Amino acid sequence: MNLHIITTGGTIDKIYFDAKSDYQVGDPVIGELLDSMGAQFPYTVESAMRKDSLELTDDDRKLIRESAERCTEQHVLITHGTDGMVQTGQALKGIEGKTIVLTGALQPAAFKGSDAIFNIGCALGALQAATPGVYITMNGQLFGIDNVRKNLERNRFEALENHGS
Amino acid sequence: MNLHIITTGGTIDKIYFDAKSDYQVGDPVIGELLDSMGAQFPYTVESAMRKDSLELTDDDRKLIRESAERCTEQHVLITHGTDGMVQTGQALKGIEGKTIVLTGALQPAAFKGSDAIFNIGCALGALQAATPGVYITMNGQLFGIDNVRKNLERNRFEALENHGS
Amino acid sequence: MNLHIITTGGTIDKIYFDAKSDYQVGDPVIGELLDSMGAQFPYTVESAMRKDSLELTDDDRKLIRESAERCTEQHVLITHGTDGMVQTGQALKGIEGKTIVLTGALQPAAFKGSDAIFNIGCALGALQAATPGVYITMNGQLFGIDNVRKNLERNRFEALENHGS
Amino acid sequence: MNLHIITTGGTIDKIYFDAKSDYQVGDPVIGELLDSMGAQFPYTVESAMRKDSLELTDDDRKLIRESAERCTEQHVLITHGTDGMVQTGQALKGIEGKTIVLTGALQPAAFKGSDAIFNIGCALGALQAATPGVYITMNGQLFGIDNVRKNLERNRFEALENHGS
Repeated sequence: MNLHIITTGGTIDKIYFDAKSDYQVGDPVIGELLDSMGAQFPYTVESAMRKDSLELTDDDRKLIRESAERCTEQHVLITHGTDGMVQTGQALKGIEGKTIVLTGALQPAAFKGSDAIFNIGCALGALQAATPGVYITMNGQLFGIDNVRKNLERNRFEALENHGS
Repeated sequence: MNLHIITTGGTIDKIYFDAKSDYQVGDPVIGELLDSMGAQFPYTVESAMRKDSLELTDDDRKLIRESAERCTEQHVLITHGTDGMVQTGQALKGIEGKTIVLTGALQPAAFKGSDAIFNIGCALGALQAATPGVYITMNGQLFGIDNVRKNLERNRFEALENHGS
Repeated sequence: MNLHIITTGGTIDKIYFDAKSDYQVGDPVIGELLDSMGAQFPYTVESAMRKDSLELTDDDRKLIRESAERCTEQHVLITHGTDGMVQTGQALKGIEGKTIVLTGALQPAAFKGSDAIFNIGCALGALQAATPGVYITMNGQLFGIDNVRKNLERNRFEALENHGS
Repeated sequence: MNLHIITTGGTIDKIYFDAKSDYQVGDPVIGELLDSMGAQFPYTVESAMRKDSLELTDDDRKLIRESAERCTEQHVLITHGTDGMVQTGQALKGIEGKTIVLTGALQPAAFKGSDAIFNIGCALGALQAATPGVYITMNGQLFGIDNVRKNLERNRFEALENHGS
């Protein structure tokens, strides 16, 4: 796998600034995570923006699409805030020959018990096995981009069909 | 995805017993991990054995194969010690219609910075996207069972045909 | 040691609410921390308020002092935000026969690598050995309340008279 | 506080060697811990030995005593395995003008939820407040060396008098 990673901000990259008693989107954590897991494959990281996904604009999504189209790698991993993840995924449909997986985290990677590294793992496993197209992986599940929503009330991702289980 | 999980022991489940100044294979951690990640899909867990993978016998591998054949689920995740993982994978080839992914950890799940939850993530992503067959996922990579070895010296998994790194 | 713990909020108790893309002061973490460390001594926990310490008023400090005076225990541990910790300590001077130690955290207890549990440890060690009075412990150091300031620029606590480093 | 730290091995420094499917006493973790907590005071670290405390001999204890006597610092922190900690403490009695605190961990510092950093915190707090003498701090309590035992069955430290609470 030759992998291109596009980071856009979101909860996964949130850190805590005590000086301001605030937290903000920090440096992308993905490279450090992959290295600490002993990942052997080549990858490139591109920090497209550092935003909460609720603040992403159409122009931001255009930029993300251009990055995904432009890169020479066939496999593209996008780390993203959870609230606007489905919308960005929709804006990425129809790129020929690319397997694109979006993921993020419900708890910042800096937290004990964060889902960040688990979700990154899911994304990597899916990227290497899936046919070209756009996917989201969260909560251990792989969703086609046309069959997923964030359930805000339950704070988790679900398939559009099959609300049970 | 309907998932059956077979646990066999190995480093991933190692805990530390201070009373004996020793560590041993403990209860399988996989269920707790999946629940803490908010996994929504149904799964069953079967603890087949609790062994270091160097101690696994042909009979043990026969038992694991029978479990993988017998379960009604199409997707099978096997947590396993890393030293004998490839050998067990070889013993699982040729089960019709099943997607089987083996994974484990180089550091116990109880350790800070363990690769356990990352590897479980990779396995889940691969299980949902891969065609039937037997795979190993470690170090962020997905390997077909006939194209993987553990590099003991470097303590990592690699493709037999070596694409760089 | 019979210990009374007064929690007031601050960074140590901050958690992250993804639903609101925000973090706020959550339930006090101190009881859970002490239990997980196998603490054997009796203690009581009183949640006096849940505030950033920059928001603490004179009335809040009066309440904290009354709690410290009223409790029957001789040893009092106060978890507190770092910005107003010195000021609250000043407001606690002169309570007869009580050993009072204030501490908190520069990173929320929920973070990997947080200083919360280390600081709580320092406070407990000091409480059992110090003569009655008011102290702050942060960054591994024990300060008398009249000889400490928070260095905002360096985000750490220091003695007023500076002994090196 | 001018602090001298003597490390002797024990659970606190245990790491896991996957290559050997074994764990062993690794490099002392104390320096890294103190730095990560932003400790500002000067300290020196001396690795006296790397042993399980059950393997410590009278000669080892003589060496530890000599180190504690020889160092110019008044405050001495000793990290130690838990099983022989009381015995080593007994061998350190009667050193004029030194405050000596022994501590260790019931779970290796490398583990999630380890008590290592909490215990180190307790030791530092006690060192700065206690009168000269020999102490043990474990499970959040500070014990004079003549009033402590390890309860092997319950895997915790207790005062000799007062087995209740």
